[in-house]
Parts: sequence; structure tokens; C-alpha cells
Amino acid sequence: MTGTPAETRSVVVEREISHSPEKLWRALTQPHLMEEWLMKNDFKPDVGHRFNLRGDWGGVLDCEVLAVEPHKTLSYTWDFKHDDPAYDMKSVVTFTLTPTATGTHLRVEQAGFRPDQKQALGGANAGWRQFLEKLDQVLARED
Amino acid sequence: MTGTPAETRSVVVEREISHSPEKLWRALTQPHLMEEWLMKNDFKPDVGHRFNLRGDWGGVLDCEVLAVEPHKTLSYTWDFKHDDPAYDMKSVVTFTLTPTATGTHLRVEQAGFRPDQKQALGGANAGWRQFLEKLDQVLARED
Repeated sequence: MTGTPAETRSVVVEREISHSPEKLWRALTQPHLMEEWLMKNDFKPDVGHRFNLRGDWGGVLDCEVLAVEPHKTLSYTWDFKHDDPAYDMKSVVTFTLTPTATGTHLRVEQAGFRPDQKQALGGANAGWRQFLEKLDQVLARED
Repeated sequence: MTGTPAETRSVVVEREISHSPEKLWRALTQPHLMEEWLMKNDFKPDVGHRFNLRGDWGGVLDCEVLAVEPHKTLSYTWDFKHDDPAYDMKSVVTFTLTPTATGTHLRVEQAGFRPDQKQALGGANAGWRQFLEKLDQVLARED
């Protein structure tokens, strides 16, 4: 990692999931399930693996797996290149799973927004809420 | 326009809308309504106006208005720059509105997919179906 300026901001979304960490982990790491709640992808749970997330409208994110601790932690870069600095983004998404009495506490953090990227920060906040809603549906269906 | 190879492909989606062309036109051209069914944007219905469509997850499309004929035709470029040619895209979206006895026939065409962009073509097909579903909801609510 290059030196990240101290002033970057994060989006953090937390959810109580009524499914085991093992089941949630599968939805977070199996490409065909990730496609259903996140985006089309060529993900592999291997540190250093580079992959893309592809939106249906043509947009593409460049990603690299940074950390994999099965059923506990998954982290990858979430980068978007654009000529306009307002849209150019280097960020890191980290999923942290903690078992609870009723299932799993899921914490999602997207870190790396610069202070001039308030719009992107707000968008990511809305985006993660939508992704996690769809994740919930995938988990419910997989029962 | 530069010479487009003859073999490019298009996505075409058509819908019978139970609202007038005037009302549909507002949803297609007013930024706050476009944001609800399409993406955040700085659109203006002026030929030559350059704007961006911004997804909640950080992706951005570069667009330019090509044609505006109120209540009839709207056309703009829908470009995505990427180092990988499989993802790099130059396309044109055209909305054509035809009044009917019960409302409006809407035709949406996204043209310019190269033969090696089958994945993008399939994604766009799914994407437009989702966008038009949300457009229907916006129109129903605006009654």
C-alpha cells in the first residue's frame, strides 16, 4: 500500500444476519452467488488475485484480493480509473464476520474516499445498502 | 461520428407505457427523475452537452447529447473507457417515443457493441430491463 493520506473517509455498514458465518462466507466468495447480490465477476478467494466487477450498464471496477481468512475476513481493492479526479477512486472493501447467538454480525467497510469525494461517499453508502438487501435475499433463498 | 464498423450489434428493448409522451419525456430528461430510474447525472437536454452518469458503486459513464426532439426522440452517447478492450465501450442510446391509443410506445436502443463484447451486450440487455422497470415505478408515482 502506498501512503494513504490520514484524511481519507470510509463508508461503514453493519448488519445482523440470521445465517451462520459459513453460509454467509459462501455468498461473499462464490462468483455465481456474488453475481446475484453484487456484480458479475471473476473473483477467486486467493490473496493477490486480480479480478473485475462488472455492472450491467457497462461500468467496470478493478479489484485485487488483499486478505482472506475463511468465515472471518475478506478484503479487496475496489478501484475505478477516470480522467476526472472527482470520479477516480482507489478504495479497499473489507468484510468482517463475527458469530453471534442468532447468526452473524457483518461489518462492511469501504475505505479510501478523499475529502473531495463526498458525492462518491454518499453514493457508496446508498450502494452498499442496496447490495446488502440483495445479499439478504440470496441468503434467504439458499436455505 | 467516426466510421462505425458494419458489424456492431445493438440491444433493443420496447415497452408499452400507459402514460403520455409528454409525461414520459419529463422522466427521460429531468435530472432528478433520471436519477431515480437510471443514475445520478448532470444531464441537460441540449445537443452537444457533455454529462456523466454515475453509479452508486463508483462507476462513471461519459455521455454527450446527440439529438433532442421533445416528446419524440432523445439520443446520447454512452461511453466507458477501460484499458481492457473487452470492457472499453463506445455506444449510443436512443429513446424513441410514439403516441398510442393508451399512452406511448417506447423503444430504447443501445448501439455500438463489437462482436467481441457479447458479455457487455448481455449485461446491457439485463440492465435496460431493470432501468425500465424502475422508470415504470417513477411514472406510476408521479401520477
